[in-house]
Amino acid sequence: MAANGDGFSEVSMEDLMGQVEKRQISTIVFIIAMQKEAQLMINRFRLVKDINSPFPKEVTWVLFNGMYKDLNISIVCPGKDSTLGVDSVGTVPASLVTYASIVAMKPDLIINAGTAGGFKAKGASIADVYIVSSVAFHDRRIPVPGLDLYGVGMRKAFPTPNLIKDLNLKVGRLSTGDSMDMPPHDKESITANDATVKDMEGAAVVYVADIFKVPTILLKGVTDIVDGNRPTSEEFLENLAAVTAKLDESVAKVIDFINGKCLSDL
Amino acid sequence: MAANGDGFSEVSMEDLMGQVEKRQISTIVFIIAMQKEAQLMINRFRLVKDINSPFPKEVTWVLFNGMYKDLNISIVCPGKDSTLGVDSVGTVPASLVTYASIVAMKPDLIINAGTAGGFKAKGASIADVYIVSSVAFHDRRIPVPGLDLYGVGMRKAFPTPNLIKDLNLKVGRLSTGDSMDMPPHDKESITANDATVKDMEGAAVVYVADIFKVPTILLKGVTDIVDGNRPTSEEFLENLAAVTAKLDESVAKVIDFINGKCLSDL
Repeated sequence: MAANGDGFSEVSMEDLMGQVEKRQISTIVFIIAMQKEAQLMINRFRLVKDINSPFPKEVTWVLFNGMYKDLNISIVCPGKDSTLGVDSVGTVPASLVTYASIVAMKPDLIINAGTAGGFKAKGASIADVYIVSSVAFHDRRIPVPGLDLYGVGMRKAFPTPNLIKDLNLKVGRLSTGDSMDMPPHDKESITANDATVKDMEGAAVVYVADIFKVPTILLKGVTDIVDGNRPTSEEFLENLAAVTAKLDESVAKVIDFINGKCLSDL
Repeated sequence: MAANGDGFSEVSMEDLMGQVEKRQISTIVFIIAMQKEAQLMINRFRLVKDINSPFPKEVTWVLFNGMYKDLNISIVCPGKDSTLGVDSVGTVPASLVTYASIVAMKPDLIINAGTAGGFKAKGASIADVYIVSSVAFHDRRIPVPGLDLYGVGMRKAFPTPNLIKDLNLKVGRLSTGDSMDMPPHDKESITANDATVKDMEGAAVVYVADIFKVPTILLKGVTDIVDGNRPTSEEFLENLAAVTAKLDESVAKVIDFINGKCLSDL
């Protein structure tokens, strides 16, 4: 655990984390880039749009919330770009909504759920849903000592050995970048990151959550095979609906498993 | 001016902007990626570190503020990465500090000042200080209609014709990306963006400021020639101190020009 200047010594921070991990999980915030990826979950958990959201009135961010079993569940989407009307995908909006959600809702757990590209060379197939073991960036190359590692920003997701065993989930590393394609420089970094899945938000969500020491789980449904022979954008659009349904099923199982448990039970 | 869901019609928003532009500028927030880039300005304006900053206690962000002539000036730096101890450069920390600074300080004007790479083919030389006319991203390639333009995210900086004329400033377009190098894909996008200078934060700062309709000026000092024959990181480190001094001089002139004026005078 890194020093973060909040005055806690390492020992007392561990004690604190120990106490937190033994408290029943109560508040979960989902960060989901596209509302299309979120809609089935919004329906399933009977969440309602919060018209008095804690976010500034100027932002396009959309918040849905409600109670499901013993859990206070929120889903936050960055919403449509106000000029272009497309989903505000990528690391910048994802980091902003993660920051504002943590400050406003102080969740026990963040779940970043969404679609991703998968590498068949690492065993991924269309419609697989992965739980992510670690995240890193593949498009932040800064060849200055220290800044190089900062750019890669490798971080572990919250460890969930029991969840993985019980639900028989596939596990893989995630590499994040702001582009949908994969030119040689990105490919090299993705290989160095040993990634099985590739998305456009995950590492940014974990970066922000890590500042606040909020445990984060990432679930990624594979919409396209990056090392296949079809264009990513074509496969992505073709498989989006079906993979979103699979992702929703996995999220439902994960939430049912989490309900009534502490972080240390995961 | 894009619809932003705040209930203002286009006409009344323009009226409002007109009123704002005729009010004397009072509060300026500088967003500066590295404290080394900011130190001379902190000294010049006699700013002091705010130990009760409005930011959450968990963040590493550093706020300096003070009065200079009639202006309430703040400088915000994302600070050192808590794990690696290096400056938190790049679009994600820049967008977070811009967001939090706007929410907490409601500035009349944001100035993003810092170092940049320059293109000699576009007339840039080491130690030139540019005022930026427009920003765009060069590492967000999303080949889906609508999302392609969203990825590029081209936005105009606040127009300052009088400031440019009076101070005889060089003007150029800025392209932003999270890497220090320039592989072929980035080069292609930077050319498409018609950029004279290249940095790692500007377009993210303007993206966030634009959500809140906060006018933004960008001043970029050239530390390295991207289309030259020396490695960027080497030139950057070699020229950092000298260029920071030039940048500080330009910032001083800009601030003296702004003092006592309205946005519409710039």
